[in-house]
Amino acid sequence: MHVLILGAAGMIGRKLTARLLKEQRIGSREISKLTLHDVVMPQTPANAPFSVSASASDFSMPGEAEKLIAAKPDMIFHLAAIVSGEAEADLDKGYRINLDGTRFLLDAIKKIGDGYKPRVVFTSSIAVFGAPFPDAIGDEFFETPLTSYGTQKAMGELMLADYSRRGILEGVGIRLPTICVRPGKPNKAASGFFSNIIREPLNGEDATLPVSEDVRHWHASPRSAIGFLMHAATIDITKLNNRINLSMPGLSVTVGEQIAGLERVAGKNVTKRIRREPDQTIMRIVSGWPRNFDTSRAKSLGFTTAEETFDDIVKLHIEDELQGNFVA
Amino acid sequence: MHVLILGAAGMIGRKLTARLLKEQRIGSREISKLTLHDVVMPQTPANAPFSVSASASDFSMPGEAEKLIAAKPDMIFHLAAIVSGEAEADLDKGYRINLDGTRFLLDAIKKIGDGYKPRVVFTSSIAVFGAPFPDAIGDEFFETPLTSYGTQKAMGELMLADYSRRGILEGVGIRLPTICVRPGKPNKAASGFFSNIIREPLNGEDATLPVSEDVRHWHASPRSAIGFLMHAATIDITKLNNRINLSMPGLSVTVGEQIAGLERVAGKNVTKRIRREPDQTIMRIVSGWPRNFDTSRAKSLGFTTAEETFDDIVKLHIEDELQGNFVA
Repeated sequence: MHVLILGAAGMIGRKLTARLLKEQRIGSREISKLTLHDVVMPQTPANAPFSVSASASDFSMPGEAEKLIAAKPDMIFHLAAIVSGEAEADLDKGYRINLDGTRFLLDAIKKIGDGYKPRVVFTSSIAVFGAPFPDAIGDEFFETPLTSYGTQKAMGELMLADYSRRGILEGVGIRLPTICVRPGKPNKAASGFFSNIIREPLNGEDATLPVSEDVRHWHASPRSAIGFLMHAATIDITKLNNRINLSMPGLSVTVGEQIAGLERVAGKNVTKRIRREPDQTIMRIVSGWPRNFDTSRAKSLGFTTAEETFDDIVKLHIEDELQGNFVA
Repeated sequence: MHVLILGAAGMIGRKLTARLLKEQRIGSREISKLTLHDVVMPQTPANAPFSVSASASDFSMPGEAEKLIAAKPDMIFHLAAIVSGEAEADLDKGYRINLDGTRFLLDAIKKIGDGYKPRVVFTSSIAVFGAPFPDAIGDEFFETPLTSYGTQKAMGELMLADYSRRGILEGVGIRLPTICVRPGKPNKAASGFFSNIIREPLNGEDATLPVSEDVRHWHASPRSAIGFLMHAATIDITKLNNRINLSMPGLSVTVGEQIAGLERVAGKNVTKRIRREPDQTIMRIVSGWPRNFDTSRAKSLGFTTAEETFDDIVKLHIEDELQGNFVA
């Protein structure tokens, strides 16, 4: 099968690429070709066991999606988006990339029109939900996003479901928890500290904690995220009954529980590197974010996390990103 | 104040126009100018107490919304849409008119950019919900439309809420129940029979009932619909807390209860004109429609219906459309 990854240069895209190269199949189907696309050129792996091509373009420009879909990929992972902060700062750009980009993709698939019906796995976000929340956000809770990014993801979910219902494609939308521990450098995303306070101390670096320890949030490891994508690619679509957009399982933990987990795994010397520097702006932003979910539906459909506790999340990070070593 | 009605030539648009001409104000603000727009030329009333202008164009063509918004109307009723059946039959047309049209309107408002911030009242639909349903659809139930029309309305709701949250406009989206009794001729809409079985017998004509009498549905009179629009135009937007899209109150009644109401108001001779002709296609379509709502939120915000029973709906129809007379 021919697999296309949109947004292949991002963190999830690179990890998904690595997983596909390793497994060489999705479910029972062998991968014959992999196409990577992003706005910046994705790296192509050396010694791949199947043909890998890469291209870079602005996917939200008319005609770009058609070019990618002309080869009729069987499996499309649509991870391309601009992030929350940028979509909030630039309204037009957010709608152009996050909404129009998705729409161009769906319409390009429709235009083929010869019975072509690919699986499209779309990464949505828990940002489709907006406070106030119930104790745990259930599978039938309404979407009232409080960011333009969340709005654009919610609109994409709806359109994907409509095109899927009409038989144009097989859509599955998965709302990823905040990915923790996110590898790489600290970034300016308001959510960055959830990962920074684990990753940086393990590297021997100080990290800043801008909120209080009782802040609760919804996490999953990068390994879980890739597992969700792989499962969404093979799930029996008829079991979804047109309700194709699903909140993924995760862990609801407080910042205090994150730090306690880090301490159990890596010791007090490591957690000492976390510096409390309260930031009212970040506190206010984070107070509008989901804290906990009831993901019964996704679980009953076979979506599972790679971790059971936050300690596991710390251990997976050390294993997957640090070759088993950290600065004690 | 300057009022703009988009979709002014439709049934709701004409009734809203008549109401504005009669009241000459919305809340405490006097109407100084009324602009009517539709894809076909709306009728302009003779002897209007304020300036009324009308125009016709395809609102979903780039540039058309800008022309209408250039005059900076203070109050915009956005009723323009193609209906469910047409949006399902012509996918591109549905997205163009129901989604792009709404987006062009919102972006035209944004482009003014001098502090202009009109109230925008958007008519959404209970078609944003899709079966299976709880006994009564509550204010926090999720939107999983099973038609492209419902999808486009749900996407419009989201975008309206985002632009409202960002301070570009004051948005209120109202999900109207099925309007019953809909005046005019029988049409081919799958929902047409809910009105046909009341209106046609009162005119001395036979009507066809394609479903069984235990089919339950959600109704409001045309007079209620206009009342919802008027209330949405004046409601304190800050009370909505960014959750600006609301299911409107209505009556949940079975077809059997509709017929019993008609019989109580108009007699057995009238209900004898209803002919049972089961239609499997219509039955299947209707089985996916909402049957009942819990509209606590709208009620607490002051939205009220003009009727308390289905008998009232029949009486309102005789009063508003038949000058008090029917064919007994």
